[in-house]
Amino acid sequence: MSKGSETRSEIIRRSAPIFNQKGYAATALSDLMEATGLEKGGIYRHFSSKEQLASEAFDFTWDLAVRTRLEGTEDIPNTIDRLKKMVRNFVERRAGLVPGGCPILNTAIESDDGNRHLREKARKALDAWAERIEKIVEEGRKKREVQRGIEPRRISSLIIGTLEGALMASRLTQDNKHLTWACNHLESFLDEEIRAKSGGTRKSK
Amino acid sequence: MSKGSETRSEIIRRSAPIFNQKGYAATALSDLMEATGLEKGGIYRHFSSKEQLASEAFDFTWDLAVRTRLEGTEDIPNTIDRLKKMVRNFVERRAGLVPGGCPILNTAIESDDGNRHLREKARKALDAWAERIEKIVEEGRKKREVQRGIEPRRISSLIIGTLEGALMASRLTQDNKHLTWACNHLESFLDEEIRAKSGGTRKSK
Repeated sequence: MSKGSETRSEIIRRSAPIFNQKGYAATALSDLMEATGLEKGGIYRHFSSKEQLASEAFDFTWDLAVRTRLEGTEDIPNTIDRLKKMVRNFVERRAGLVPGGCPILNTAIESDDGNRHLREKARKALDAWAERIEKIVEEGRKKREVQRGIEPRRISSLIIGTLEGALMASRLTQDNKHLTWACNHLESFLDEEIRAKSGGTRKSK
Repeated sequence: MSKGSETRSEIIRRSAPIFNQKGYAATALSDLMEATGLEKGGIYRHFSSKEQLASEAFDFTWDLAVRTRLEGTEDIPNTIDRLKKMVRNFVERRAGLVPGGCPILNTAIESDDGNRHLREKARKALDAWAERIEKIVEEGRKKREVQRGIEPRRISSLIIGTLEGALMASRLTQDNKHLTWACNHLESFLDEEIRAKSGGTRKSK
């Protein structure tokens, strides 16, 4: 890595928490200068605008969130157990994330009536996350681990919505119980309503 | 109502959609002047600061949301049916609301790392909404319409989180399916997991 691209990465890494906490629109150049220890020119040597830096900071924050949510899932053969692990990761593995909560939720709320470019990025990230879940459900259907007649899009919508809403409530009340309860609910929903009754590894009630 | 208090109410009514859509911090005085058709002095004759106006606009937006969510619920005698109606109202009765989505969600995300006063207002609004649901669950327990061992706080957390998360996804994708699916899920959850099995009006599967 050249010195230039190292500096560039470091600017993204240091700006990401500011954007994710303050909001992408509300973050001022002065906030970014303080976080990076650079002058205006030092930042704009690497990024054409604040929007470009915001966009790359979103990607950085989101990539880290995705990797964290997937940790230890890919080697779980049973698809329902894999989905349950993804849910638990969302709830339990929050320590290494960029501070400020889920970047999709933040960006969706901040830009739903405004910034089109960021809104589009958040929408694509949401779609990609949903698709990942839907593929696991599809695989589970083929392997008969998932009950017949289950619509993958409903499952992804429900998992994502329940987790994001609980995250909002937990952040607002500074109490993780909402996330824990959402996790419990989704785990038993997956076991009781989605897992095929003949699935072998089904948990007893 | 005096002319002065009429003007004051009108300023709140016209400012509320701006704050709820743009964000409470991102709304500029110029936005409020445009929305109200008043000069700076005309606004500040009635409010000591932008923050005071933002705070009263939040209350206006939230009061309207609460009234809409409760419409037609109070005369439903069965507590599970009353909860189901509240859920349906959240999903179906969105037309008369202040534009911009749920003010708790917006304020929670916008101010979770910043504005303490608004954050506190959103937290209190969330608590009041949760308490309202919990009282209905308590009433249902006493009337044996709710299964034994159900924790009211878990039910309120789950209903609120699921609806708010689905609202975020529906707004981001401009597709109400997430809200509809969340409503279906919560309705069948209330019927199957919360309603007492001997409750008489229980829906057949």
